[in-house]
Amino acid sequence: MKHTLTRNEAWSLLALVAACLGVIANTFQGDGEPLIASLAISGIAFAAAFSLIRWLGGVFMKAGLKGKDMSKLRQVEIPETMGAVCAIVYILLLIVFIPFPFYKDIVAATSGGGNRDVVLPVHHVETGRFLHRFPHNKLASFLSGLLSLQSIVILGIGDDMLDIRWRHKVLIPAFASIPMLIVYFVDFGVTHVVVPVPLQRYLGRFIDLGWLYYVYMAAVAIFCPNSINMLAGINGIEVSQSLVIATLLVINDALYLAPFTPYPHPATDSHLFSIYLLLPFIAVSFALWWHNWYPAKVFVGDTYCYFAGMVFAVVAILGHFSKTLLLMFIPQIFNFVYSTPQLFHLVPCPRHRLPHFNARTGLLEPSVTEWPRPPPLIIATALELLHQLRLVRIRKNEVGEIVESTNLTILNLWLVWFGPLREDRLAIHIVMLQVVCGIAGLLVRHKLALWVFSEDNRGFGSLAKS
Amino acid sequence: MKHTLTRNEAWSLLALVAACLGVIANTFQGDGEPLIASLAISGIAFAAAFSLIRWLGGVFMKAGLKGKDMSKLRQVEIPETMGAVCAIVYILLLIVFIPFPFYKDIVAATSGGGNRDVVLPVHHVETGRFLHRFPHNKLASFLSGLLSLQSIVILGIGDDMLDIRWRHKVLIPAFASIPMLIVYFVDFGVTHVVVPVPLQRYLGRFIDLGWLYYVYMAAVAIFCPNSINMLAGINGIEVSQSLVIATLLVINDALYLAPFTPYPHPATDSHLFSIYLLLPFIAVSFALWWHNWYPAKVFVGDTYCYFAGMVFAVVAILGHFSKTLLLMFIPQIFNFVYSTPQLFHLVPCPRHRLPHFNARTGLLEPSVTEWPRPPPLIIATALELLHQLRLVRIRKNEVGEIVESTNLTILNLWLVWFGPLREDRLAIHIVMLQVVCGIAGLLVRHKLALWVFSEDNRGFGSLAKS
Repeated sequence: MKHTLTRNEAWSLLALVAACLGVIANTFQGDGEPLIASLAISGIAFAAAFSLIRWLGGVFMKAGLKGKDMSKLRQVEIPETMGAVCAIVYILLLIVFIPFPFYKDIVAATSGGGNRDVVLPVHHVETGRFLHRFPHNKLASFLSGLLSLQSIVILGIGDDMLDIRWRHKVLIPAFASIPMLIVYFVDFGVTHVVVPVPLQRYLGRFIDLGWLYYVYMAAVAIFCPNSINMLAGINGIEVSQSLVIATLLVINDALYLAPFTPYPHPATDSHLFSIYLLLPFIAVSFALWWHNWYPAKVFVGDTYCYFAGMVFAVVAILGHFSKTLLLMFIPQIFNFVYSTPQLFHLVPCPRHRLPHFNARTGLLEPSVTEWPRPPPLIIATALELLHQLRLVRIRKNEVGEIVESTNLTILNLWLVWFGPLREDRLAIHIVMLQVVCGIAGLLVRHKLALWVFSEDNRGFGSLAKS
Repeated sequence: MKHTLTRNEAWSLLALVAACLGVIANTFQGDGEPLIASLAISGIAFAAAFSLIRWLGGVFMKAGLKGKDMSKLRQVEIPETMGAVCAIVYILLLIVFIPFPFYKDIVAATSGGGNRDVVLPVHHVETGRFLHRFPHNKLASFLSGLLSLQSIVILGIGDDMLDIRWRHKVLIPAFASIPMLIVYFVDFGVTHVVVPVPLQRYLGRFIDLGWLYYVYMAAVAIFCPNSINMLAGINGIEVSQSLVIATLLVINDALYLAPFTPYPHPATDSHLFSIYLLLPFIAVSFALWWHNWYPAKVFVGDTYCYFAGMVFAVVAILGHFSKTLLLMFIPQIFNFVYSTPQLFHLVPCPRHRLPHFNARTGLLEPSVTEWPRPPPLIIATALELLHQLRLVRIRKNEVGEIVESTNLTILNLWLVWFGPLREDRLAIHIVMLQVVCGIAGLLVRHKLALWVFSEDNRGFGSLAKS
């Protein structure tokens, strides 16, 4: 790949940026409609990420951030860690975006109360300033989300550069989630959750989980980045799954916004917040996808996986829809559960478990782990059973001892089922699976949830009544 | 250097951490005295930074982050960019520190108004929550400072890894200051400055600088990191000057705090904020200094210089004492002004301008830039004049044309004056100079400022009156 934009690309991106800047200028003239500004910022984010990924390729290679694609016949070296570029573009543009969602409040606060119900004339004695209802807490939660994202980028880059051990890596998102959790603790501290209807007679309508709620949030923040990092290993799969999840979350957010729901819906702000974070994410991810899809011209690096997972964790935790988020992660959850025997070393775990590239056919086959000595009876029985259920493929020697079994990842399982596939076919299959699971998840969330919770908080119930 | 702690060091650091944890636990039991918690957090920061600098040395070298010390006889390779470790430890611990300054407010808000004048019973109609006077804006400014610091660390690491060009480097702090400036714009927007007394009859007591104030703040944020990065090149000089500046700023902050001043002084909060940011900075810098002082066992990298400068910019801008800050930067300002002929290429500028190491004597001498062809008349005259004033040293060829002149940095100038010096002697001299200039600056600030401003805002005047 040449590390420049083609003339066509350069002009298209320039036109996109110009159009977006026009929209933003317009937004500032009007009443600062943040949703439109967010779309325009996303356009700029796409153009910036696209150009920088192209331009910095050579610089990254020179700095040693490069790798070989193991699943190709010609193993040329291509730039690594390009997700860091996306993440930095994303964060800088989200910072620039800060004034937009708060623009109305600034105008209201400085015009001496153009919108009277926004300004509370309670005199602030010590400083002599008016105590208006500027949404400081919204701002603080936005900033804390940004802090967590920046933390994961710093630690992710450290990981990509220094090659940190698996055991330590898992905890990187835990560190990065600290700012968000601390600001949550300091500024909100809401640790009540709604109790499902069948349990309400025992527990009441709400239950205060206290510090357990923080443990739960930290677990979500640790799970999302790591589970995306785990469903990896073929061109484009990390970015594609993230794009699907982000798009489904935006659709979910849109369901909460007018004109679908009575305005102002209590959750409107949370879901707007979520959209503001997701639109630029989709933009930079799409720019990365362009270069990372089969045949990949750049690699994304662990930084991207951490960053993507953290974006989801941030929007879900600060937007209070972490259960909905987990419904979008069904393939990742399956992949994690399916992997546990190798993670806990019940089954030998090689350093890389990506599918095996058969250079003769050009297709991917399930990769295997070899058993240096036959497994203990209980594991052998379990593997045998899974083999019968077609959940793993084992090979035995002449005396009936297991000598190898396929690696326990969803990619290898898919190859066990649907036999050798070309790399891009496999990626498309998995992406489709993610789409189907995600839509099913959304249906469960908004239709079936009525059986266990008294109403869908999207408020169709109250709309029907009114 | 072995990349482990000695038994002695390990036990001392462990004892320090244990003591600090004890203090913190105690603080949480009591009324959450944040100043004491900040001291304890700083102790932990020192121990963490010290250990990590030692442990990660090998990992950094393996990742290619290493360099040779040009001013030594035996040029062994030592780890580079160790400032990044300090910066990350610093930021993580500052995040952990967030609850402490806001602890009293949390208690007051959740205990149902133990402190009545903190809770305003204005009912917030939409969400049904009480509008108490939780200092959201203080929290937002703290978070925005952290965001700026994280940004500078990310961009600084990028610079250290990718070797960005000088022209682009200068603007890195500008990008990093965006979060702070935007939150300042969104949340405070105070752009008034006090007018010096002699001008008050023309301009009034205050003048609103409007957007010019943002330009000024950005200029401060660009100047501080770059000027520290510019006064560099010998072992320990970057960290030592930062330690001196930080210590002087803490002394200045202490002047504003009880029992010196009537409480509550309007600026108390700003200066407490400044202390909370500076104490852990001093701690991690001291851990780095230990390894970076002559003969250096690690290098600090551009990341440290940017990071240190940004810490100063953040505390000064958010604490509203940027003019005082600039008084602490007198040697850096001199060094910058003195360097301008080379920065603007009126005088040739080699890539490195650090003093020349004379391997025969083991001493440092002024480094020179060579004139491939003699300078134009006006520059030759100026250099001749500076030479007479002993502000530069030139060498002429037999026909009287200038063939070389010393590089225009304060380090080289000092060597012109005080002749060949050993590396650590030179560093000590410059640090002493920084101390003397800084103390003079503080005196100017608090004594002479009364001549041009109606009163020292430290409030001795009002104390005397009361």
